This record gives sequence, C-alpha cells and structure tokens, in this order.
Amino acid sequence: MHGSMGKVATRFFEFDNPKSPLKLRVGGKLSRYTLAYEMYGQMNADRSNVILVFHAMTGSQHAAGMNRRIPGVGRLWTEEMHVGWWDEFIGPGRALDTRKFCVICANYLGGCYGSTGPGSINPKTQRPWGPAFPVLRMVDIVESQLKLLDALGVKKLHAVVGASVGGYLCLVLATRHPNRVKTVVPIATGVETTINQRILNFEQISAIESDAHFNGGDYYGGLHPDTGLARARRIAHKTFVSLEALRERARSEVLRRQTPHGWYRMNHPIESYMWHQGEKFVQRFDANTYLRIVDAWQWFNLPDEAEARNLSEAFARCRRQEFLVFSMDSDGAFPTHDQSKLVHLLKQARVPVMWITVHTDKGHDAFLLEPRLFTPHLMQVLNR
Amino acid sequence: MHGSMGKVATRFFEFDNPKSPLKLRVGGKLSRYTLAYEMYGQMNADRSNVILVFHAMTGSQHAAGMNRRIPGVGRLWTEEMHVGWWDEFIGPGRALDTRKFCVICANYLGGCYGSTGPGSINPKTQRPWGPAFPVLRMVDIVESQLKLLDALGVKKLHAVVGASVGGYLCLVLATRHPNRVKTVVPIATGVETTINQRILNFEQISAIESDAHFNGGDYYGGLHPDTGLARARRIAHKTFVSLEALRERARSEVLRRQTPHGWYRMNHPIESYMWHQGEKFVQRFDANTYLRIVDAWQWFNLPDEAEARNLSEAFARCRRQEFLVFSMDSDGAFPTHDQSKLVHLLKQARVPVMWITVHTDKGHDAFLLEPRLFTPHLMQVLNR
Repeated sequence: MHGSMGKVATRFFEFDNPKSPLKLRVGGKLSRYTLAYEMYGQMNADRSNVILVFHAMTGSQHAAGMNRRIPGVGRLWTEEMHVGWWDEFIGPGRALDTRKFCVICANYLGGCYGSTGPGSINPKTQRPWGPAFPVLRMVDIVESQLKLLDALGVKKLHAVVGASVGGYLCLVLATRHPNRVKTVVPIATGVETTINQRILNFEQISAIESDAHFNGGDYYGGLHPDTGLARARRIAHKTFVSLEALRERARSEVLRRQTPHGWYRMNHPIESYMWHQGEKFVQRFDANTYLRIVDAWQWFNLPDEAEARNLSEAFARCRRQEFLVFSMDSDGAFPTHDQSKLVHLLKQARVPVMWITVHTDKGHDAFLLEPRLFTPHLMQVLNR
Repeated sequence: MHGSMGKVATRFFEFDNPKSPLKLRVGGKLSRYTLAYEMYGQMNADRSNVILVFHAMTGSQHAAGMNRRIPGVGRLWTEEMHVGWWDEFIGPGRALDTRKFCVICANYLGGCYGSTGPGSINPKTQRPWGPAFPVLRMVDIVESQLKLLDALGVKKLHAVVGASVGGYLCLVLATRHPNRVKTVVPIATGVETTINQRILNFEQISAIESDAHFNGGDYYGGLHPDTGLARARRIAHKTFVSLEALRERARSEVLRRQTPHGWYRMNHPIESYMWHQGEKFVQRFDANTYLRIVDAWQWFNLPDEAEARNLSEAFARCRRQEFLVFSMDSDGAFPTHDQSKLVHLLKQARVPVMWITVHTDKGHDAFLLEPRLFTPHLMQVLNR
C-alpha cells in the first residue's frame, strides 16, 4: 500500500549568497543555509505545475514514498519516519497527483532533518549553534523556501498546501506574495495564536527550558533535555487526538506500573500510552528545533509578517487566488472556530473560498490519517 | 465584607489509638495522626446540626473568618490564605448559616496546613516522612475525618458539602456511611476520574517528579521541587478558570519579558499571568501533599472505596439521603457531563436529587467566587 512513489531521496538546497543574504524578521541574517527537501513528479516546461507542501510542526521534508536514510541526520531518522507522512495523499492518481503535478516539501529552516538549525555547525565557531542560532518567525521559514523555489526557477506555484502550523505558513506565503501562488489550501489552522494555544505552548516551553539538561539550549555536548521534551510532547499530543481516539488507543496499551523517575505508580493504560508518546518522540526530534517552532508560533502575527496593516488588508491581496479551507470537527488543537475566523476574513475580502468540515473521531491528526475525507475536494480544486 | 465570623483559630484533633488504628486502604495504618480543623457556629444539644465541608484539592481547614497564623504551619500560611476560602458562604445569615448550624472543615490527612502529612515528622525516624508517608486514597481522608466526628460526638451529619475533589469525598462518605449524613451537596464533581482528568493529572505528576529537586519525595532537607510544582499548578489552573476569565485576567497583567530559566522571551500577558500563578502557588503548598492528592484522584474508585459491587449498588444505599448537585456551565475541570452521570445514577437508584446548573463565565472557580449563584438553593435544602 505504501510508497507508490517507491524509494525517494532527500535533496539539499545550499543557499550561499553573502551579497544578498536571507534577512531574518527580528534581526540577523543568514548568508548560508541548507534546506533539505524532496520532490515528487516532474516539473512541466514552464514550471507552472508545482505544489509546495508545508509540513506540520514536527514533520519533515519526507512527505511521500520510502526513505530509509538522510545523510547527516543520524539517529533522529527513526523507523517511524521512513514512510512519508503524507504518503497516501501524494502519488499517481492520489489527491496531489504526481502524474500532473510536481510536489515539493522542505524541512523548515531551524529543523532537525537536514535543514540548517540549532543542531547544525555554526561556521564561525565550528560548534553546534545551540542558543546562538538566530530567532525565527514564520515568515523566515517561508522566505527560506522561496529562495529554493527561485533556485528551481518556479515563479508561481500551482498551489500551496499545509496543515496546522504548516497552514500558518500557507497564509504568510499567500498574503505576503500574492502573485506567487494560485491556489491556497490551509488545513486545520487559523489566522492567529489563540489564548488556548498560547497557554499550552507556554507549558511546553517551560517543560523544555526547565529540564536540568537544557542549559539554555547549549546541550549538544552532553545529555539532551529529553525529559522536558517528552513532557512537552505529551502536553501537545492530547490536543492532536480526540478523547474518543485516546480512549481507543489506550485500550490496547500494556499497563506499565513504574514511572522511571518517581514515586507515583501508574494506574491506567492512558498513562502508559501518554508516557510512551513522549519517549518515542524524543528519539526523533531535537528540543531546540521544537522550541524554535513553538516560539515562532507564540509570536505569530500574520499582518506583521505579511507587512500589512491588519488582517483585512492582508487578505484583500488574495483576490486572484482561490482558497480551499478544511476543518475537522473533533480538532482540539485548531477547533473549527479558528477556521471560521479565517473564512470570514476571506469572504469579507471577496477572495474565492470553499470551506469544508470533515467529520471524524480522530481529532487534529485526521489530516494525516484519513485521506478519503480530503481527497475529493483536493482533487476538484487542484485539477481545475 | 469579609469575616462576619471575625477572628477564628484552627484546632487540632489528635488521634492516638494504637489498639484501633486508622487502617489505610492500600495497606498500612496510622495509630497517631493530627487533623487541623476549624468550627463555626455552635453544636446543638443532640449534635444534629453539624455540616461537614470538604475543602478542594489545595484548600485548607480555614473556610471562614480571619486566621493570620496556624501554629506549626510556618511559611506556607501566606497572606492570601488569611481570609477563609468560603468566607462568603459561611456565617450568620449566609448559605451555611452559623446561627443554625455548626460548620466543620478539616485539612485533609496528608495535607500541609497542620494535618499530618508527608512534611510532618515521622515519630519512628524523627525526620519528615517524605516518600515514606503511607499511600492515601479518598476513603482514608474520609475515614480520618469520621474519627474526628466520633471524637466530637457527632453521629449523623445534617449535611456534607464539597466541591471538586471535595465532592468525591462527599460521595465516598455518603455511599460508605449512608446513615451518617442526611443531606449531600456535591458541587462540580463526578463519580469517577475521566480520561481528560487522568491525562492532566499525569502531566502534573510528571512535572513534579521530574524536578531535579524532587529526589523521590525526600527533599525537606534541601531545595524543594518548586519549579515542577509551579508547572503542575499552571497545568491545572487553566482548567479552573474559563478562557473568557483567563483573557480578562491576563489583560491587567504586566508583561514580563524574561523567563527565569530560559531562552524564550515571553510575548503575551497570559504567559506572565500563568507564570505568576505557579510562582504564587509554590509559596503556599507542599509538593508531596499535592502529589498525594493527585495520586488519590488518579486511583479514585468509588465502588471500591465504598465497598460496593458497582456504582448502582453504592448509590442505592443513599435512598434516605437527599442530594443537591451543582454544575457550572463553563467548568473545564468537571464539565456538566460529569454531574449528569452522577444525577443519572442517583435517579436510577431512586435517591431524591435536585440538580442545578449555574451559568457563569468564571469556570470551575465559580464555586469560590460567586456565592449568590449557590446560596438560594443551599439555603432551601439545608434549612428544610
């Protein structure tokens, strides 16, 4: 079933332009950086058939097919990453049809799957960047990927697609560079950081930063803040999965009695399940990368990053685009209310928009798990 | 406005009965323990006018009036504790009318406000109990307070009242000792630990236990796990206050830029507000006490603790009692659904029950903040 794309390989875009560096939103610049990306399908002659996919917070460039190894990534490329995270959405005849389209997905700048990030070597010191890595905003991730598109000769995207935090990136790209994309597909996202998200994100930041091994972010020479990162993941995970799905998943979990560090004796499979989610995650992710993305989320400010006066002005630029907005009714991370606000702004700005709510008991993660809920509308809009 | 009870003092009940010790649910026994309690109003001749109030998780025996100092409690008795936590509910002419009733409230066994707990001196070692303090279940807290009632000569309570975790204790008392209480008032509580509560409780346990200073619970000689306890409090706090109220409270918060331990720069008053909630809390609470109560919550099993085969059998015992159940529509900690299950069971068991939902934008904390929403029904049922 997996891998109609077969074996795929990550490519590396090396930006190197001391004369015209990537300027970062809150200051600083990068004259050199690497983006790890993958590409599925062929570009047509005028390069007008490209779909850019933004992965979600802890995703990677590896969206489809099978990829067992990424040079330089090492132990973080665990087995659960080997099949692309949107494998059932991308391929010949699938929602993002590689017979027609060339699909590109790049690991975020600041990432830990081959793009330059806090764990990369700082050329000035020959040691990992750690806390010295520049502060990133959503707009920096978008701009870094536009440099990749420039290098590939892609002037205007057929579409940009992204879920969750990836949806924020879609909105930044669409409002900041309205002429560079035709169709915009934000899934389970919003136009701002809500109070609920702020609280949960802040809990996660605290969990990581207060780990005894965090050391201000300078931990690559020693033990990593895995306890804090695992705790952060558990805090987030409960919002990705509906309570119904959590209950179901916990049912098959073997009850573990001991917490490794404590006095408490676990008494319910949901605890073992949540514990395991954290333990599994730290095998495949870097705490600084996590922190940087959550930081960009907390500071996300769409008008500011689009250089518009307000949200209305930002979306007024999108009148020549077409939007397809997806909601999931059981989404605890980005509830339907968040997309409602986005759609309202688009309609006010007279931007063509179709809004679809899919009904699922899988919560936020449904965008990864249930291709059949999204495929018909994706095909309709992308193939038009 | 505060303190129609005026100055009050905490009393101490010294249980000391090596021949008939308090047997604890999961094993072990206490032949000696202290309960700190307060009493408002006078007992009548046949001692039939007593109302027992169970405080909530981090509450104390000091429910009404003004009490500036509790012998032996020391620095944890901070200024915010000086006015009783239910001061506006208890007093002459108030919902729990001290002209008619004698109101008693005791600090939980395991507590940190004068009752014997993990921070007390273990007579065997002459050092604080710490992790050696016996494991507690809800039923142990209830039984320890029944010994106090025995000592006071109170055979049957006029009523038992409790909110939140205090509501669990009401239900244990009512189902385990159906002849010892006439009227039962569980507020914002439930008959079981829900999946959502399990997840959040487990996050709090992890936060405390993974603090570098926790040391398995043996920390009284050194630094306390304040970072972990503060984080636990923040995780819980968001469920006590509705999002609307959080937004409102955060508005008046001065934005603080630096987290004391980290790289992250705060960007929203809600973060300072949540931070402050944690910092404030650790001034007044002990991490081991917190952990013990959350542990009892995770393991809460009403049929088991009532020694009944199931919930139906437990509530069938309550037919001679009368229940008044309160819900708050914006309660995120014990949503209305939880009380719905309780009321359904009571009705099935043909127990007289009145169920009232009060509408408030204050969330779970409304039971502390809005006496006018509860007073009319409390008076009607208690004064009957």
